[in-house]
Amino acid sequence: MSTSTSLNEQEAREQLLELAAEFYDQFAEGDVPRMQIPTRTKSNIEYDEEKDVWVYGDRSSTRSAKTVSGAQKLLKATYTIDFLANQLEEDRSSTLRELYYLSESWDLDEAQFNTQDESNNLIEDLEIVSEVKREDFHMRPEESGAKVMGPLLLREQTRRGDREIHCQKDVGQGGYQIPNNPDTIEFLENDADFVLAVETGGMRDRLVENGFDDEYNSIVVHLGGQPARATRRLIKRMRNELDLPVVVFADGDPWSYRIYGSVAYGSIKSAHLSEYLATPDAQYIGIRPEDIVEYDLPTDPLSDSDVNALESELEDPRFQTEFWEEQIELQLEIEKKSEQQSLAARGLDFVTDTYLPTRLEEMNVL
Amino acid sequence: MSTSTSLNEQEAREQLLELAAEFYDQFAEGDVPRMQIPTRTKSNIEYDEEKDVWVYGDRSSTRSAKTVSGAQKLLKATYTIDFLANQLEEDRSSTLRELYYLSESWDLDEAQFNTQDESNNLIEDLEIVSEVKREDFHMRPEESGAKVMGPLLLREQTRRGDREIHCQKDVGQGGYQIPNNPDTIEFLENDADFVLAVETGGMRDRLVENGFDDEYNSIVVHLGGQPARATRRLIKRMRNELDLPVVVFADGDPWSYRIYGSVAYGSIKSAHLSEYLATPDAQYIGIRPEDIVEYDLPTDPLSDSDVNALESELEDPRFQTEFWEEQIELQLEIEKKSEQQSLAARGLDFVTDTYLPTRLEEMNVL
Repeated sequence: MSTSTSLNEQEAREQLLELAAEFYDQFAEGDVPRMQIPTRTKSNIEYDEEKDVWVYGDRSSTRSAKTVSGAQKLLKATYTIDFLANQLEEDRSSTLRELYYLSESWDLDEAQFNTQDESNNLIEDLEIVSEVKREDFHMRPEESGAKVMGPLLLREQTRRGDREIHCQKDVGQGGYQIPNNPDTIEFLENDADFVLAVETGGMRDRLVENGFDDEYNSIVVHLGGQPARATRRLIKRMRNELDLPVVVFADGDPWSYRIYGSVAYGSIKSAHLSEYLATPDAQYIGIRPEDIVEYDLPTDPLSDSDVNALESELEDPRFQTEFWEEQIELQLEIEKKSEQQSLAARGLDFVTDTYLPTRLEEMNVL
Repeated sequence: MSTSTSLNEQEAREQLLELAAEFYDQFAEGDVPRMQIPTRTKSNIEYDEEKDVWVYGDRSSTRSAKTVSGAQKLLKATYTIDFLANQLEEDRSSTLRELYYLSESWDLDEAQFNTQDESNNLIEDLEIVSEVKREDFHMRPEESGAKVMGPLLLREQTRRGDREIHCQKDVGQGGYQIPNNPDTIEFLENDADFVLAVETGGMRDRLVENGFDDEYNSIVVHLGGQPARATRRLIKRMRNELDLPVVVFADGDPWSYRIYGSVAYGSIKSAHLSEYLATPDAQYIGIRPEDIVEYDLPTDPLSDSDVNALESELEDPRFQTEFWEEQIELQLEIEKKSEQQSLAARGLDFVTDTYLPTRLEEMNVL
């Protein structure tokens, strides 16, 4: 995808309409209309050395009007482009689910979606082919972004005017709520040394209660489990625009390594957006399997699905580094996992007084 | 529970320590120490006519040191009271999960918790017996509160000083994030006519995009699925302190009726807190089964578990009203359910231009 910055409504609209125009031209030239899309599976992602992110490889499939089902897909794409172009003209927005339901009002039965997976996939296809991001054609996610607390003054452009918000002084204990489209945010001033992305709400609240963001000039971003696109985008922008190192603090289990992976490497579903969403040099601060051993943390045994997930990560190109191979193999050996909050077994201040400062120094972040 | 307002640290601490003192007195008098707790099941909740909420009935069980397992429960209770008393003295707080892990640092192995369910249940027991709410002994939930958007100016007391926040003018598109303990909030001014609690993020964003809160002087509270205690508490306070009617807008399925139920009637697990959390005259605006028929909404068929949940609701004393019996029986008859966002099949503005205003007038809220 060539666009790593936002498009305005007019540009996004034009790029979408161009796509419909291509179908028209193919018809006019006596060709069968078609749309070519990269295969979106783990086996078709590869590392882009230059951009330092994982992107789709060369394998692709073609949606062609040669078959009835292919023709129906292109028909649905055309109706969706029409809807999106109108939406952009009116400066409106909608959710993926609304699009699915909206299609019921379309005049042609064959153009209506049968399942929400179908409309979701089509939107991803259109993102890839038109090179316009979902956010830029004003499709809002269901999932909302998470919360920010730290020494950062920003300006958010809302539908009701601009808002200047300091993410410590102008917010409650709950922090600043990331909007669906974080490209409406402009960073004004900051006094931060690094970004700490935290998986769980309980740990986020512990850090805020202990004043970690204040004492260590840290922007604490709550991921809330698997992070929303909005959260990943904001973290990436803090890395690039504010030149801040990013560390990810999660539970010590394979699902949390995936959360780290989606911040650092992007997800397979959205590899066309890696350049826009991923923070390749984000580092994993913990919980690491080595911490489970070193700090003798309370643990749970690995379940079968944990073991499978770890083994699948060993085969994932994105985890084939010395660091991850060592940690994952150690975890398979000790057969245990620990949560972030298990650090409380050493007292409520251990995480902010000892664990994080020690590790941040080792990582040369402090 | 006698306390429907907040206790300060000193009062909460004293009430907890009194409980430990009772065990001591029972010992001193040559009695076997014990603690009596109401049975927390659906069959032991009943309607309190005076307070207009559902509370626990007369059935109770006794934890007594006569048995080894009973003695261990009281031992754990004593250690937990000690921990909480220290926490209150130091004006700290912790999460339920931290408490579970913290117990690993206690000197007596028998006092440590074996599972998190065990520590969670003990905290609920202590809430009931000590008549101190979890929030007042500074146990934070994992779940965080949801978001507010509307014509309301409030002051939140944070650990870093007071913050005055207007829930339209001082927040981004994401709104004001409800803190874990909403009793740190003071309502200063408002220009609202009613509170609209919304289940899904997609619909919350639709209402905000369409300016519904502004046009109809409505405080839009995002529930985010099953609402956190903090969210339910804040809604209850808006009802009582601001004298605003409350309506709940959710999907048209049995799980969403339970969400409504937890706002209006409280939950079985926390019936001892109904007076503090429940908003008995909250009304259910929709989606109603009658809407599915009247507006010919896009639907999904009821699953077996949907049917079971509806049948169980018919037997739940909290749903035994003419309104609910009619709606639930209609739904079992049509065998269909619809989501809030299915209203989009009639256009993106239908919900704010037609559906909600019409229903609000019928309900005499507008």
